[in-house]
Amino acid sequence: MYPFTDGSYAPKNGWYVAAFCHEVGEELLSRWILNQPVVLYRKADGTAVAVQGRCPHRHFPLGASRRVGDAIQCAYHGITFDAAGACTFVPSQEKIPGVYSIKAYPLVERGLWAWIWPGDPALADESLVPDMGDIGYSLPGYHARALFYHHVEGRYQLLNDNLLDLSHLGYLHHSSIGTPDDAATPETREANNRFIRSRRIMRNTLRPAVVDWQTDFAGPIDRVSGMDFHFPGFHAGIADVLVAQGHARAGELLRSNRVWHAVTPAGRTTTNYFFAMASPDPKALDEAESYLKPVIEEDIFATVEIEKIISTLDELPPELMLKSDGTAVMGRRALQRMMDAERQ
Amino acid sequence: MYPFTDGSYAPKNGWYVAAFCHEVGEELLSRWILNQPVVLYRKADGTAVAVQGRCPHRHFPLGASRRVGDAIQCAYHGITFDAAGACTFVPSQEKIPGVYSIKAYPLVERGLWAWIWPGDPALADESLVPDMGDIGYSLPGYHARALFYHHVEGRYQLLNDNLLDLSHLGYLHHSSIGTPDDAATPETREANNRFIRSRRIMRNTLRPAVVDWQTDFAGPIDRVSGMDFHFPGFHAGIADVLVAQGHARAGELLRSNRVWHAVTPAGRTTTNYFFAMASPDPKALDEAESYLKPVIEEDIFATVEIEKIISTLDELPPELMLKSDGTAVMGRRALQRMMDAERQ
Amino acid sequence: MYPFTDGSYAPKNGWYVAAFCHEVGEELLSRWILNQPVVLYRKADGTAVAVQGRCPHRHFPLGASRRVGDAIQCAYHGITFDAAGACTFVPSQEKIPGVYSIKAYPLVERGLWAWIWPGDPALADESLVPDMGDIGYSLPGYHARALFYHHVEGRYQLLNDNLLDLSHLGYLHHSSIGTPDDAATPETREANNRFIRSRRIMRNTLRPAVVDWQTDFAGPIDRVSGMDFHFPGFHAGIADVLVAQGHARAGELLRSNRVWHAVTPAGRTTTNYFFAMASPDPKALDEAESYLKPVIEEDIFATVEIEKIISTLDELPPELMLKSDGTAVMGRRALQRMMDAERQ
Repeated sequence: MYPFTDGSYAPKNGWYVAAFCHEVGEELLSRWILNQPVVLYRKADGTAVAVQGRCPHRHFPLGASRRVGDAIQCAYHGITFDAAGACTFVPSQEKIPGVYSIKAYPLVERGLWAWIWPGDPALADESLVPDMGDIGYSLPGYHARALFYHHVEGRYQLLNDNLLDLSHLGYLHHSSIGTPDDAATPETREANNRFIRSRRIMRNTLRPAVVDWQTDFAGPIDRVSGMDFHFPGFHAGIADVLVAQGHARAGELLRSNRVWHAVTPAGRTTTNYFFAMASPDPKALDEAESYLKPVIEEDIFATVEIEKIISTLDELPPELMLKSDGTAVMGRRALQRMMDAERQ
Repeated sequence: MYPFTDGSYAPKNGWYVAAFCHEVGEELLSRWILNQPVVLYRKADGTAVAVQGRCPHRHFPLGASRRVGDAIQCAYHGITFDAAGACTFVPSQEKIPGVYSIKAYPLVERGLWAWIWPGDPALADESLVPDMGDIGYSLPGYHARALFYHHVEGRYQLLNDNLLDLSHLGYLHHSSIGTPDDAATPETREANNRFIRSRRIMRNTLRPAVVDWQTDFAGPIDRVSGMDFHFPGFHAGIADVLVAQGHARAGELLRSNRVWHAVTPAGRTTTNYFFAMASPDPKALDEAESYLKPVIEEDIFATVEIEKIISTLDELPPELMLKSDGTAVMGRRALQRMMDAERQ
Repeated sequence: MYPFTDGSYAPKNGWYVAAFCHEVGEELLSRWILNQPVVLYRKADGTAVAVQGRCPHRHFPLGASRRVGDAIQCAYHGITFDAAGACTFVPSQEKIPGVYSIKAYPLVERGLWAWIWPGDPALADESLVPDMGDIGYSLPGYHARALFYHHVEGRYQLLNDNLLDLSHLGYLHHSSIGTPDDAATPETREANNRFIRSRRIMRNTLRPAVVDWQTDFAGPIDRVSGMDFHFPGFHAGIADVLVAQGHARAGELLRSNRVWHAVTPAGRTTTNYFFAMASPDPKALDEAESYLKPVIEEDIFATVEIEKIISTLDELPPELMLKSDGTAVMGRRALQRMMDAERQ
């Protein structure tokens, strides 16, 4: 499906954020992931688990069921599955049919996130979870915080496309975090087999609206903006504001944010969207929760409105690509390659 | 469609409950039945009738039209049909085209219900309406009452499956009418060409929550639970609580209910659901209206949630059957046989 | 699609009302037309324009974007298109790719309406806009007013069918503007290659309910009712009430309305519906706004309810035509011919 080849929806063999760690607790948490219902919860010993959210008996949602110790008991007929997916109890018969089990997802908690692997568990290599160093999570002196979770009524690649082309900051977010320089300044790109990195360094640049109250420095500024897309669904970004080159305080960090967007397919045209960030200044995180709320909503607005158009039109005309789409094109190709490889 | 073979939706040649008798009156009552709009009303002489709910001229809903005597006058262009479906008036021309008529459904009122036959009228044998004796309607000393009508956003067979496996009482309804014994106790089954009967006798059994306030007898109890599925869409049940064998008052009826669930396909994935019951004690019916309301809503919740899952998944995995599904499997096969026969 | 042949939706080469002139102003106006998003606005010099409502870069809705002078700047990445559809600015690169442009619709303002031509612009002949004389717009002494715009959840041809058979006035609008004589009186028809005209002259006829307060003349009346269907989507009607022949004041106009219904496909099963009228008496227009509101809502009710039925049924039975459907049949054939011609 658009923008991928027919029959291509999403790579399965990859680590996707299923939840923020803090969302996973004693209560069962229901979430659709790659068009499958999933249930997340934390065992008595604190371990987070994710299992199939559909009872194999009659398709009842296990997320609307009950915990019995570390197991889930289906609220319909009482069939019970442990945290590894094994069936431990069938109320109506003593012998448990051999075929009875539910899928248990490989799950890793790292950073603020609970990552699951929807594909073949045998391939679920923990070292493929984005490196916390690479994403700027373990920067000394930075405080990280989970800020927003949204269920978005648009297909996931629209959000990936959004994050892979930050030239939109100058327009979609012109009233807050971006300026025309975000679009006018060329970006550099590099890629390896795990992520694509783009960086944009704006020298002596326009001041985004939010900078005015974020600092009392009134002189010239430089900005560094960039995003790393860790396949298949994690974006780690940098947003720094510095005193401009040439000034006496040149290079002094006025503001420094690390931002993380996790984009996980929910249904065919819906998405789980997680936003978190870090800053050396905890107060900056409090402020961010307020000034980034409308920013994230602008991205969601774009996603939802584009989804309406592309799912209504009888035939979708081709997109007319620009040079600034280079990173997005690389990102799409990376996912398409993963999907193609899975099909073989 | 699931759980039937491709192209199979519902048997047409059978008596389905279209309404409770008390719902059918002077006003036109609109209801979708087997994916067709139907209108029910009562003629001046008191006879209930059911006719096609779509004007053959321009497809306007006749249920949103007007009665003119015993006829229906389409509210759009005034074309009028009598209670037998014959066109009696075309405002714009004197001669009524020979082809003008609407379908009139064979209708029988029996017990609390108005039954219609959506298929070939020539086959509409009234003796095929469930026998009021068989379903426990004519038990001396019992008072019957229509309690609930619901339009359910789930396909009809999910409700039939629900009613054909009462082991769910111990779990879905664990806080009210069921206990784990409802699942742990094997049931007996028998079938003929008109219905499938299942019975579960629980000796010296756990007390369902509702029994505590229903009786001041604190000693050991037996329970009898069962359901007869009269094809294609009527379930007649028994729910008795007795003093347990061995006790001095052994066999004394503490509580006795006859329950009736009518399950009539509305659209492809929606259902008309009618619940009624009888008890020797009229006060018990007042109470039932209150304590069975959430019970019925639990069944609807299961149906709606399962429908969401099965209509969202790209491919529906096979259900993993248990011994307790034997009755449901028999029920599905009975309906599939009816549909297969109709196709030939 | 119904009621046209498979694959036929709507003629493209024709003038459709996209908006009332008064709706088009400085603000961007979004409207779906023939299943395409369109944006309308007025340039600084007052000229109304209509352009494609989808940015060709990433499909963002241009109607949710920003005006920059006479151009539209996409609110997502800032790409800018002038009122003729040419791309004038790409923020992220200096050279504008040659392929960059959006469709600009030929637009004509005539009467109360802004007409656009969704098909081949080379064929957009302004002389094909309905003649303002023909439709009764330029009648001396008459005041015209735009009254209602509705987005209707039903396919457009249902509204055309409605307007092409005014026998429904006697039934759907029996409580206000019609009487059984609207159905019982035969109409005359004539057609040319631009419109179909139907007229119904009711002599010494029943008084519609609204006539009672519209005039204090209590004697016998004649009525003239009729509609001209200008292909592909405009209906110009006449509704006169006169003192009946034979009376001393015979032929005196008691009430005279010209009514205009524009029916423009929005999506596949939704419609833009515009209603306007004229009368020699401005007060009559004030009254009409109030007494015709429910009348228009009755037509919309019929449309929406029929849409529900025809889009739910598995197979739509053929309509059973009457003599009074002759005009509607002519109207459908005219549109089908246009569509057939476009396909070749």
